[in-house]
Amino acid sequence: MQTEEETTALPPKEEFSAWYNDLLWRAEIMDVRYPVKGVYVWFPFGFSIRKLTYAILRQLLDKDHQETLFPLLIPEQEFMKEAEHIKGFEEEVYWVTHGGLTELDVKLALRPTSETAIYPMYALWVRSHADLPLKLYQIVNTFRYETKHTRPLIRLREITSFKEAHTVHATWDEAAAQVEDALALYTTFYQHLCVPILISRRPEWDKFPGADYTMAVDTVMPDGKTLQIGTVHHLGDHFSRTFDITYENQNGEQQLAYQTCYGISERCIAALISMHGDDKGLILPPEVAPVQVVVVPIIVGKRRDEVLAAARTIRDQLEAAGLRVKLDEREIRPGAKYYHWEMRGVPLRVELGPRDLDNGVVTAVTRSKEKSTIPAASLIEGVQALLEQVRNTLATTGGQHLAAHLKQVETMDDLKVAIEEGVAIVHWCGDKACADRIEEETEASVLGTEVRSSLVSKTEGRCLVCGRAGTTTLIGRSY
Amino acid sequence: MQTEEETTALPPKEEFSAWYNDLLWRAEIMDVRYPVKGVYVWFPFGFSIRKLTYAILRQLLDKDHQETLFPLLIPEQEFMKEAEHIKGFEEEVYWVTHGGLTELDVKLALRPTSETAIYPMYALWVRSHADLPLKLYQIVNTFRYETKHTRPLIRLREITSFKEAHTVHATWDEAAAQVEDALALYTTFYQHLCVPILISRRPEWDKFPGADYTMAVDTVMPDGKTLQIGTVHHLGDHFSRTFDITYENQNGEQQLAYQTCYGISERCIAALISMHGDDKGLILPPEVAPVQVVVVPIIVGKRRDEVLAAARTIRDQLEAAGLRVKLDEREIRPGAKYYHWEMRGVPLRVELGPRDLDNGVVTAVTRSKEKSTIPAASLIEGVQALLEQVRNTLATTGGQHLAAHLKQVETMDDLKVAIEEGVAIVHWCGDKACADRIEEETEASVLGTEVRSSLVSKTEGRCLVCGRAGTTTLIGRSY
Repeated sequence: MQTEEETTALPPKEEFSAWYNDLLWRAEIMDVRYPVKGVYVWFPFGFSIRKLTYAILRQLLDKDHQETLFPLLIPEQEFMKEAEHIKGFEEEVYWVTHGGLTELDVKLALRPTSETAIYPMYALWVRSHADLPLKLYQIVNTFRYETKHTRPLIRLREITSFKEAHTVHATWDEAAAQVEDALALYTTFYQHLCVPILISRRPEWDKFPGADYTMAVDTVMPDGKTLQIGTVHHLGDHFSRTFDITYENQNGEQQLAYQTCYGISERCIAALISMHGDDKGLILPPEVAPVQVVVVPIIVGKRRDEVLAAARTIRDQLEAAGLRVKLDEREIRPGAKYYHWEMRGVPLRVELGPRDLDNGVVTAVTRSKEKSTIPAASLIEGVQALLEQVRNTLATTGGQHLAAHLKQVETMDDLKVAIEEGVAIVHWCGDKACADRIEEETEASVLGTEVRSSLVSKTEGRCLVCGRAGTTTLIGRSY
Repeated sequence: MQTEEETTALPPKEEFSAWYNDLLWRAEIMDVRYPVKGVYVWFPFGFSIRKLTYAILRQLLDKDHQETLFPLLIPEQEFMKEAEHIKGFEEEVYWVTHGGLTELDVKLALRPTSETAIYPMYALWVRSHADLPLKLYQIVNTFRYETKHTRPLIRLREITSFKEAHTVHATWDEAAAQVEDALALYTTFYQHLCVPILISRRPEWDKFPGADYTMAVDTVMPDGKTLQIGTVHHLGDHFSRTFDITYENQNGEQQLAYQTCYGISERCIAALISMHGDDKGLILPPEVAPVQVVVVPIIVGKRRDEVLAAARTIRDQLEAAGLRVKLDEREIRPGAKYYHWEMRGVPLRVELGPRDLDNGVVTAVTRSKEKSTIPAASLIEGVQALLEQVRNTLATTGGQHLAAHLKQVETMDDLKVAIEEGVAIVHWCGDKACADRIEEETEASVLGTEVRSSLVSKTEGRCLVCGRAGTTTLIGRSY
């Protein structure tokens, strides 16, 4: 749909913010020109990345969750039931006050998250221990009146793609086990995207309003700042008390249920494109690439028809093997085609010219410019092996990126340097006062404790600020 | 999730309204107990019918449309740009006026439909004839402040599943051809659901606000009332003038574009379940049945383990053949299981008891109680043939239902009788005054002219009211 000149360069990826903004429209992911602040439009190409990504998430969840759909509109009295929850959201909630020309009797909130929409129904649905565990999820739009600087896919007023799961359990321990299951599921999900993650337990003041505790999934962006790309909350019995979610146990007694909830938004797409892109555009893992292979015929003079026919055959063979393929037959020079598909992150380009034809081969070029020759007779195997190789390379470079942006430090001075580059691993006593001190001196904050990462070893140590006994803690600058 | 007594009967289907309301919760489609009027919750089972149904719609659209996603919130000034459009919606639009504790500078409408969200972007996206035709669609929630009686899946304040397509073309004729393509697509879609349809052109006063003309897809519900389950609008250049959607033609001149839009909401699910259900519950075409085959082991005494093991093998074989299968191992009597799965519309039940084992067969019972024996050796073929038979039966009975509810009449008296039973085919001169007269005398209204249905032959005739020359016209009572 773009008629802009396509051959000007992207800003280099080192200028991450400029690169990110430019990439979004040049790779046709999101259009930021919609006339409401903080609200963006998905281009069809971007939306197909989203579809493929969320298909993975659905597949993982569908093993033991069921998908459902609850209303967007939450009546004020339900929304206001859980005190901490209100306090956490009151400045961010959009309110519908009028229907047509009529003022509504009851104001309606646009869900910022769906606890207060879902749990009144859970109170009706959960009756007996036989109904537990209950594990449902939905993928919906949610709304936050963000006053901070908004940014496509990262900080939005309409989050278009919030996957939120809500579970109910008989005991606190079972809910805690579900937290671990959810973290395992999210770990698998991000492995599919080749996005490296750090899991940690958020400090008390940064947990979800109304939770016993919050586990968070962060990644480290190219500029060293962290992006929270998933959260898992143990809700204890806070909401079940408020919304009266009880079940009859095997002895016929009414018991309060325990709950968890966990979510991932389109930030997963922000992480995906930021982690793997380069100065030429997107780089997509094959599993989520709308186009996995582009076939470019190299047409020279007389053998045009012959080359085109062979290119179509190759396209058909690859499609028959279940691959997402595009044959680029446009009447433009090959270089312009390369530029176009590199920008859109296509993992593999297959070129076919008269010489390839004569030699019974195709020329394959990965998105990272590794060139090889595949015999036409083993086209499918050759292409699949290269796509697997692209995937493995992205997983490796993702892991290296994270390792390079993690540093263990012991002093405030070293911390100040470390957080410029990425995430610092420190020891911290757990006191808010010491966390505040870190924030004042470094403009970074405590991400979390109880870190789950093979890159972070848990050691005993002294708090960076006060010198008392401290535990391994992640410090970073967050989006 | 339900612990209600499952063995009380549904109201008979002749009492359609009571039957429909009861079926929705007993078959676990929608829960109406959400505390906002006109807004309902999808049960997971209902949501999986929706997923399968919309997967068909996506597959049909994806052949030559692209999926995308536009914002829910439309700023007041954009919404107010097209005069007829505002007039059509001003009494039905929900307005967001506050973000957190702050009053918004610009009120935001919740989309009742997305023309005014999408077309400002189309004005940016469409530049040249090479960009045309542009065919995009989205599946979103939309909102109408309905003042009429609301009803799940039929008349909602939050329409959770609006598939809306929006196309742009170089000429009026190309847009008109797209209207026909869309009608063909919708016809195919409803063939998949075994839902019979009538297509007609809505009268001028009933067309979409801002359209040149509106084609509508109706079905006839069990009570003889019609349900509009799809519309296709030729928008002419109304919106392209308003939103400045122009393209450069091959001669380098700027031209106004022509547009269409067409939509289907979750009313398609209302039609699906209403058309095929019976006094025992849902009846689902296999293609959209979340469970296509339920395997019920008939366990008697000593051979329990043997029967269960064989039932599991059957489940595994059917699943390996790509079918959606449930093995019901619950410790309740078979009759209760039959009741449970009949309510949920499972097309085929496979029973397996000791005698079946001895005979090397399974007993298969379709949802409409046709019993047969399938040799274990040809299980898959036998099951697939029966599912195909169920599908064909539903298509046939759907067609018969429509034929039985269509009647050609020539006088007002006959019309009064006919519209009690269903849709009447009359001749009408096209004048509003005559249509008003029909409406006053019968409480039915003009559905449309230019009828496309093999059941309706177009003949010349005299207007039922005034006696002037009239064309074939459908009259019905509508939901």
